[in-house]
Amino acid sequence: MDQENIVDDVHDIENEGLLDRKGIDRYWSEVSDKNMTYTEPLLVKRTNTTSQIAIVGANVCPIESLDYEIIENELFKQDWRSRKKVQIFQYVLLKWAFALLIGLGTGLVGFFNNIAVENISGFKLLLTSDLMSKHKYFKAFAAYAGCNVVLAVAAAALCAFIAPAAAGSGIPEIFGSILGVSAGFVVGKEGPMVHTGACIANLLGQGGSRKYHLTWTWLRYFKNDRDRRDMITCGAAAGVAAAFRAPVGGVLFALEEAASWWRSALLWRTFFTTAVVAIVLRAFIQYCNTGKCGLFGEGGLIMYDVSSAKTTYSGSDILAVIFLGTIGGILGSIYNYFVDKVLRTYSIINERGAAFKILLVIIISCLTSCCSFGLPWFAKCIACPTDLTVSCPTVGESGNYKSFQCSSGYYNDLASLFLNTNDDAIRNLFSTSTTKEFHISSLFIFFGAVYCLGIITYGIAIPSGLFIPVILAGACYGRLVGRLFESMSTLDTGLFALLGAASFLGGTMRMTVSLCIILLELTNDLQLLPLVMLVLLISKTVADNFNKGVYDQILKIKGLPYMEAHAEPYMRHLVARDVITGPLVTFSGIEKVGNILHALKTTGHNGFPVIDEPPLSGPPELCGIVLRSHLLVLLKRKNFSRDRVVTGDDILQRFAAFDFAKAGSGKGIKLEDLDIEEEEMEMYVDLHPITNSSPYTVVETMSLAKAAILFRQLGLRHMCVVPKSQGRPPIVGILTRHDFMPEHILGLNPHVMPDK
Amino acid sequence: MDQENIVDDVHDIENEGLLDRKGIDRYWSEVSDKNMTYTEPLLVKRTNTTSQIAIVGANVCPIESLDYEIIENELFKQDWRSRKKVQIFQYVLLKWAFALLIGLGTGLVGFFNNIAVENISGFKLLLTSDLMSKHKYFKAFAAYAGCNVVLAVAAAALCAFIAPAAAGSGIPEIFGSILGVSAGFVVGKEGPMVHTGACIANLLGQGGSRKYHLTWTWLRYFKNDRDRRDMITCGAAAGVAAAFRAPVGGVLFALEEAASWWRSALLWRTFFTTAVVAIVLRAFIQYCNTGKCGLFGEGGLIMYDVSSAKTTYSGSDILAVIFLGTIGGILGSIYNYFVDKVLRTYSIINERGAAFKILLVIIISCLTSCCSFGLPWFAKCIACPTDLTVSCPTVGESGNYKSFQCSSGYYNDLASLFLNTNDDAIRNLFSTSTTKEFHISSLFIFFGAVYCLGIITYGIAIPSGLFIPVILAGACYGRLVGRLFESMSTLDTGLFALLGAASFLGGTMRMTVSLCIILLELTNDLQLLPLVMLVLLISKTVADNFNKGVYDQILKIKGLPYMEAHAEPYMRHLVARDVITGPLVTFSGIEKVGNILHALKTTGHNGFPVIDEPPLSGPPELCGIVLRSHLLVLLKRKNFSRDRVVTGDDILQRFAAFDFAKAGSGKGIKLEDLDIEEEEMEMYVDLHPITNSSPYTVVETMSLAKAAILFRQLGLRHMCVVPKSQGRPPIVGILTRHDFMPEHILGLNPHVMPDK
Repeated sequence: MDQENIVDDVHDIENEGLLDRKGIDRYWSEVSDKNMTYTEPLLVKRTNTTSQIAIVGANVCPIESLDYEIIENELFKQDWRSRKKVQIFQYVLLKWAFALLIGLGTGLVGFFNNIAVENISGFKLLLTSDLMSKHKYFKAFAAYAGCNVVLAVAAAALCAFIAPAAAGSGIPEIFGSILGVSAGFVVGKEGPMVHTGACIANLLGQGGSRKYHLTWTWLRYFKNDRDRRDMITCGAAAGVAAAFRAPVGGVLFALEEAASWWRSALLWRTFFTTAVVAIVLRAFIQYCNTGKCGLFGEGGLIMYDVSSAKTTYSGSDILAVIFLGTIGGILGSIYNYFVDKVLRTYSIINERGAAFKILLVIIISCLTSCCSFGLPWFAKCIACPTDLTVSCPTVGESGNYKSFQCSSGYYNDLASLFLNTNDDAIRNLFSTSTTKEFHISSLFIFFGAVYCLGIITYGIAIPSGLFIPVILAGACYGRLVGRLFESMSTLDTGLFALLGAASFLGGTMRMTVSLCIILLELTNDLQLLPLVMLVLLISKTVADNFNKGVYDQILKIKGLPYMEAHAEPYMRHLVARDVITGPLVTFSGIEKVGNILHALKTTGHNGFPVIDEPPLSGPPELCGIVLRSHLLVLLKRKNFSRDRVVTGDDILQRFAAFDFAKAGSGKGIKLEDLDIEEEEMEMYVDLHPITNSSPYTVVETMSLAKAAILFRQLGLRHMCVVPKSQGRPPIVGILTRHDFMPEHILGLNPHVMPDK
Repeated sequence: MDQENIVDDVHDIENEGLLDRKGIDRYWSEVSDKNMTYTEPLLVKRTNTTSQIAIVGANVCPIESLDYEIIENELFKQDWRSRKKVQIFQYVLLKWAFALLIGLGTGLVGFFNNIAVENISGFKLLLTSDLMSKHKYFKAFAAYAGCNVVLAVAAAALCAFIAPAAAGSGIPEIFGSILGVSAGFVVGKEGPMVHTGACIANLLGQGGSRKYHLTWTWLRYFKNDRDRRDMITCGAAAGVAAAFRAPVGGVLFALEEAASWWRSALLWRTFFTTAVVAIVLRAFIQYCNTGKCGLFGEGGLIMYDVSSAKTTYSGSDILAVIFLGTIGGILGSIYNYFVDKVLRTYSIINERGAAFKILLVIIISCLTSCCSFGLPWFAKCIACPTDLTVSCPTVGESGNYKSFQCSSGYYNDLASLFLNTNDDAIRNLFSTSTTKEFHISSLFIFFGAVYCLGIITYGIAIPSGLFIPVILAGACYGRLVGRLFESMSTLDTGLFALLGAASFLGGTMRMTVSLCIILLELTNDLQLLPLVMLVLLISKTVADNFNKGVYDQILKIKGLPYMEAHAEPYMRHLVARDVITGPLVTFSGIEKVGNILHALKTTGHNGFPVIDEPPLSGPPELCGIVLRSHLLVLLKRKNFSRDRVVTGDDILQRFAAFDFAKAGSGKGIKLEDLDIEEEEMEMYVDLHPITNSSPYTVVETMSLAKAAILFRQLGLRHMCVVPKSQGRPPIVGILTRHDFMPEHILGLNPHVMPDK
């Protein structure tokens, strides 16, 4: 891959972009820990000149603000009207075609991912069990640990060298994830899947990739913030749908986590995308059921079918479930606490360079191998149940009953959990009507190991997801509780495992509806709904007393200026004026080129207010706001005049409508690209045509809480603060996302106590 | 019930309130057609003095705007701080307790509703089949039609006399719905259920009901717009959950239909409420399974279990499904077209008085009885299948196989559909592995009858829901298509019925995600998801080409000023100034009492801008906006002064914080309650303490599209338009919801073509 291009991409991403989209950010944060370079929150200092998104490390398309839709659409419309109606139809059709493409692409990738993981780790496990059956224990361990380390190093190398910022097409992500999961790490594939889905969508939205010579002129109509955001949302939903084979869960995940900009039409398209993913996956799985996909054969669209278990429950069952939820919430918040600590430690190690990153991966890999291979020795061999339909011990395939060191007719229950893929281990734990399959002590050992491994694995330099480790630990915890309450509750231990997983997810992620749906889609039993709901509610409520959700923690570590949907209580005691800082840089309606260049060079601002002054108007009045990117386009064309005259909208006719359209990452004009002569510096340029003349404004005495709500609800990037009284300059300041961050507000107004 | 009180309630409801809440409005519109009094859209004339909500006819709590949260919370806070921390905890706890109560209440009502319907109509049907088996055909018809008419008249009388505006506690609704459904009408219980859920929530939110002596001082903390809205949302979700036993569907319905004000915390509480409903229902159903609920015995939490059918599908199945979806969409839009026509006709009839309403109900009831009893005679008797586990023909209970006129060993398939409750008919249609149970001609007849009856029944004076009729017609249509495609598709006819129902729902309601989830929860098979999604997408897309969703149509007939979430394209060519009308009534910061009274009397405005003028300030500046309701409270207390002096915030100390809190419907101070002396008219009152000093403002040159988005996204009630240039009065006008209605905008600006 083109290394230079990636660096460009990262540098171009502006530091005020994107960050409203909590959900999307979370996906990035989930996949990008492989190159954490943070130690302290960046927000303490307002670092306007460095790129904070670069730290997130994904090739995010910077979605700036929906406030600019209008101006862009105005330009767009001029071009538009000259076209025929049939082309408008094409545009709408293309939107749906993109949704289809995203669905198909993500479905395919998801399927490929599954097949590859099943085959690679299946091969590894077969090799190991083959050697074990010949009593060559050390050779077996060597083979097992060796495979793991090789796969792990490959994954880490991919991340460390090929895609250091996880930039680009998402292809390194896919392979990294396949290798990482196959290497036996306690990681999930869902984070990278979501990332890949978003990457596919982003690639389409950027008008294809010049790198791969995939471009199409029609795609330029999608070069605006709204269409990009919509497509990325679709992509993320498709990723969830593909990872969990949960289409409705995918839609809800996108909805619950990216709800601030939710629109009905978007829901509609997202829904379509995930339906396509589901159909693609289903078609492939049906094909594979004929046995043509190597070791991949198991399962339908439902990953862990528990619908055979009885689902009536009594009062004592509810009590057991409440207990399970409470403890699950506590364990979940402890998990979050340690993940936070570990991430901070790893970030220091990872900062030292690629060699350290890979070393860390190797250490964790060896530790995982030792646990997986060593701990099963502590388990006693259990006689195979007699009423089985599957073979026991399992030979030649990944199954419920691993023989490990046991003789024929016996199986090792711990090995059945450890020496399996994570998916299979979860399936074993969720399996119903097999109460006695796992011994209590085995469950206890496995739970402890997975809980700790999950914590120390997240944050190493491989693409990783958090859901699967949490589900794995939770399922084991649930089954353990089920065994302990055996005498009291009549619920199946498989159901207890499911509820345990729910309690852990609730305790760490703190999402509710989307998690609930994903779990139900994983297990195909809606009858469980009330119980799953109850557990999620309890565990989230309990965990919220201790700390924040794991994604909120990560956002905080990374110092991303994420705005909460609600205003903080202390904001009620402040007004908009109280948080304005720094000198305000304004332009005249017709400004000297030199002044503009100077401002662009010396500040990092992305928006500048434009003020009409005498003699062009009466008293000075606010004309609007102009974007750095638009200024660069204007300056590049050199439409200058010697005198202070209005050139008017004619100027736009010298531009194609799409010159001002949103450029792809790294493809916009940069300050260095400009080549302005000394003589031109003294000339004038009319900014009116590119000025957004309807910026959202607030009066300086507006309650800060209300200003924050306005800013957040409308997804703004810049908000103009205007004076209350007349006879003063027509603008007091500009507020950006940074100005609403608690650190900034409380730094400027230390007397305001952040009371609850 | 207290008739006068109801009239008060209706009159008090202000005409700008509530209407952002599309979802809630839709619930009302669904239940309130029994007293339609509209003929023409009211929006053509801007009728500020009449109450438009009164037409909707429900005792809605007028949620005005979230813009006032701040001022109310300021007052609230003063009171709050004097209280102890433990009481804040109580407040939060109370919120959850309310969610619990709403859940319990709605669950109970839902269960009661089911039991009553099953028993009443079960008794009726048993009587009929008993007479039929004795070959007393005329007596049977007389008994059947007689029961129906009596029940129908009772339901209509309840609506026409006891609860003409569906005001109050929702109790008349429940009984009306029970009677209406039992009367054999093609109506559903879900509309009234949603209404009842919202009523329960509203009752709690109003601080109990003085009428029923249920009050509690703590409840006054909930007398604000936000808490009320939240509780009503919870109630509506609980209603859906209770009607369909679909808790996730309930949450999503509230989310999809009331999404503009959605918050994460609210989702959380809604989720809890519906979980409670599900648990309550489940507990009762388990109790009933022991046979203690009379004729109610069937079913678990899942209403129509189709999970036994095989769910693999091939390309030709998909083709059949696409065909089904397309035709379903067309039929759905035709359904909408006729419902619209019928509603307009009925509204003229219903306007003439209670007698006409009841007459209409009787006619429709007789028509329904004739269809239900007459049409089965056209069906041939079919020999009972031999491999049944249930008895055939069914004797002594409502079941799949009705004998009607047939001899022993035979059943009449049309009677099995007609002479059953709607729920049972749907269950029969959804039943799997019974392909041949219904003859094609029978399905055809039943489909035609139900399709037409559904159209002519909606709008008569009984509480009715639209979902069940649409599902019934759709299921029949789907099964019909399934039979026709028998040779081509391997899908079960029961699945076809489900998909047919989905296509009809998509074609009429045009919702997607919530419908999909409700259907899946009704049928308990997530494997069907991709197919259901596909059908919904196709039918909605097809139907959208013809007309709007049925609820949008009803909103339009009723002339409710509902604002779309997006701005219309023609708004881009206008600015905020272009839609301002009428003389602006402003107050000084310290205003003469007489002036205020005059303004309150002569205008219908609910908000007035307050302007500080010399000598109190320099040039005049906008101080804020004051509400009619707050002015009334202030005037009532007579804190007047002889001179133009600032009394300041001290004035608030003479008020309890809750004097300004939102009064319940019909409980606020009215203009007639004021008793101002002639002498006092010349005195002054300081408006500053009650002025909302941070109103949201836009500049007059702001694009109307952007102003509309601001208005809608923030859920405003009033928006101040300020001048762009200095030296003019500080406010140009006030925009309310009415000013954004297309009729109003296009009336003022006829040159703007509403292009697409």
